[in-house]
Amino acid sequence: MLIFIGLGLYDERSITVEGRRALREADRAYAEFYTSKLLGTTAEELESAHDVSIEVRDRAGVEQEPDEMLAAAEDEDVAFLTAGDTMISTTHVDLRLRAHDRGIETRVIHGVTAQTAASSLTGLQNYRFGKATTLPFPYAHGADGLPSSVTGTIDANRADGHHTVVYLDIKAERGEYMTADVGAELLAEVYPDLVGIVVARAGSPDPLVAAGTMTELARRSFGDPLHLLVVPGDCHLLEADALVELAGADRSTLEIV
Amino acid sequence: MLIFIGLGLYDERSITVEGRRALREADRAYAEFYTSKLLGTTAEELESAHDVSIEVRDRAGVEQEPDEMLAAAEDEDVAFLTAGDTMISTTHVDLRLRAHDRGIETRVIHGVTAQTAASSLTGLQNYRFGKATTLPFPYAHGADGLPSSVTGTIDANRADGHHTVVYLDIKAERGEYMTADVGAELLAEVYPDLVGIVVARAGSPDPLVAAGTMTELARRSFGDPLHLLVVPGDCHLLEADALVELAGADRSTLEIV
Repeated sequence: MLIFIGLGLYDERSITVEGRRALREADRAYAEFYTSKLLGTTAEELESAHDVSIEVRDRAGVEQEPDEMLAAAEDEDVAFLTAGDTMISTTHVDLRLRAHDRGIETRVIHGVTAQTAASSLTGLQNYRFGKATTLPFPYAHGADGLPSSVTGTIDANRADGHHTVVYLDIKAERGEYMTADVGAELLAEVYPDLVGIVVARAGSPDPLVAAGTMTELARRSFGDPLHLLVVPGDCHLLEADALVELAGADRSTLEIV
Repeated sequence: MLIFIGLGLYDERSITVEGRRALREADRAYAEFYTSKLLGTTAEELESAHDVSIEVRDRAGVEQEPDEMLAAAEDEDVAFLTAGDTMISTTHVDLRLRAHDRGIETRVIHGVTAQTAASSLTGLQNYRFGKATTLPFPYAHGADGLPSSVTGTIDANRADGHHTVVYLDIKAERGEYMTADVGAELLAEVYPDLVGIVVARAGSPDPLVAAGTMTELARRSFGDPLHLLVVPGDCHLLEADALVELAGADRSTLEIV
């Protein structure tokens, strides 16, 4: 069996009790930290905390050479670990489908995601978020200015009154995590007065939530990664209260419905 | 301190290791199971598994009489437990803000949500979902036909090519959980040929994922709750592969881009 286990957001205690049990009972464990990373721990600390041996694989080792993992999963219980939830992007769906093609049973043990934390920490209701988007590093994007995928998503959600999660680019293999001040500076080129909410270190014991215009947020710093930004749409009264109280938002800048 | 701890989706092992630690270290623990419920366990089993005493409160006991909890949290570490993540709907944001008003420190320890599991189990990418909606029981909705909040959300998301999570009504205090066949039957009044994906028992060891038109799904049964429905929008090739392989979807019914 191939068991996909989400490690959650921050450290070795962010995994669920069920995930830890399955990891400990597995015959072998692989992990990848190129799509994201746990900033509060290391692979060695995970091994020590869970009393297992973990083989960390790079992108090529997962996507181009999955045969060793799949062959092992034909006879043994193999755990495959990632930050967050392993299956919410299609990155690893391919691996799951390859396992199915070979007749290997699979199981998914979920982990807490940044999407959940963005809603939970800001006090914005999860079902009032529209589609999310990712703000890439300019060098990764390649062209000048903001990608239309970002502006199009923010504009469409705002027109509908919906909130937007703006994930900030992660190049975990290079150790590059876009911070919220950098993200806000990029967004301020198009939206200088747009209100954004920074969520930093979601899932850690000391998360930070801070509101301001993109111009204001670009001038501040928010400490260690990971960071993301939320662009609030129309806010119900309690959502506005939460942004004022928990994020220091200026009530007069919010669209309260 | 008032510590909001999400129990996750299914049983006493769906909590994170961090959440369990905080629960065990808390001086007292309250829980509510009226917004949702863990179908794989009971309050008694939670108490036994985590070696704590838990006082379960009804809606009035949380929303109208929070003073006892808040007074305790002024001097002690008080845990407040719910299914899923405690803060992704504004239901308990009010309690958090009341605590802040009294100068009580708060902390949120996240739990896995149905939103995460819907994406993860179907293989549909999390950032290609639009706004979610909830399908109410007809008696709760009060009028004939589908509420415009449901049809408007599905229609707008489909027009944009986005996926939609359709949460099915939960009246946990009455023990009523809308099953996916009932939800599909309601949706089939307006959308008989619309493809839906049933996700049943997300977070449990035996989740079920099944695709079909609303008319087809209305004739099937999907076992124990909780259930939800996903309406896929435009699908990338790998998303379509996942729906065919994991949910038994008919490829010709999917909008593949």
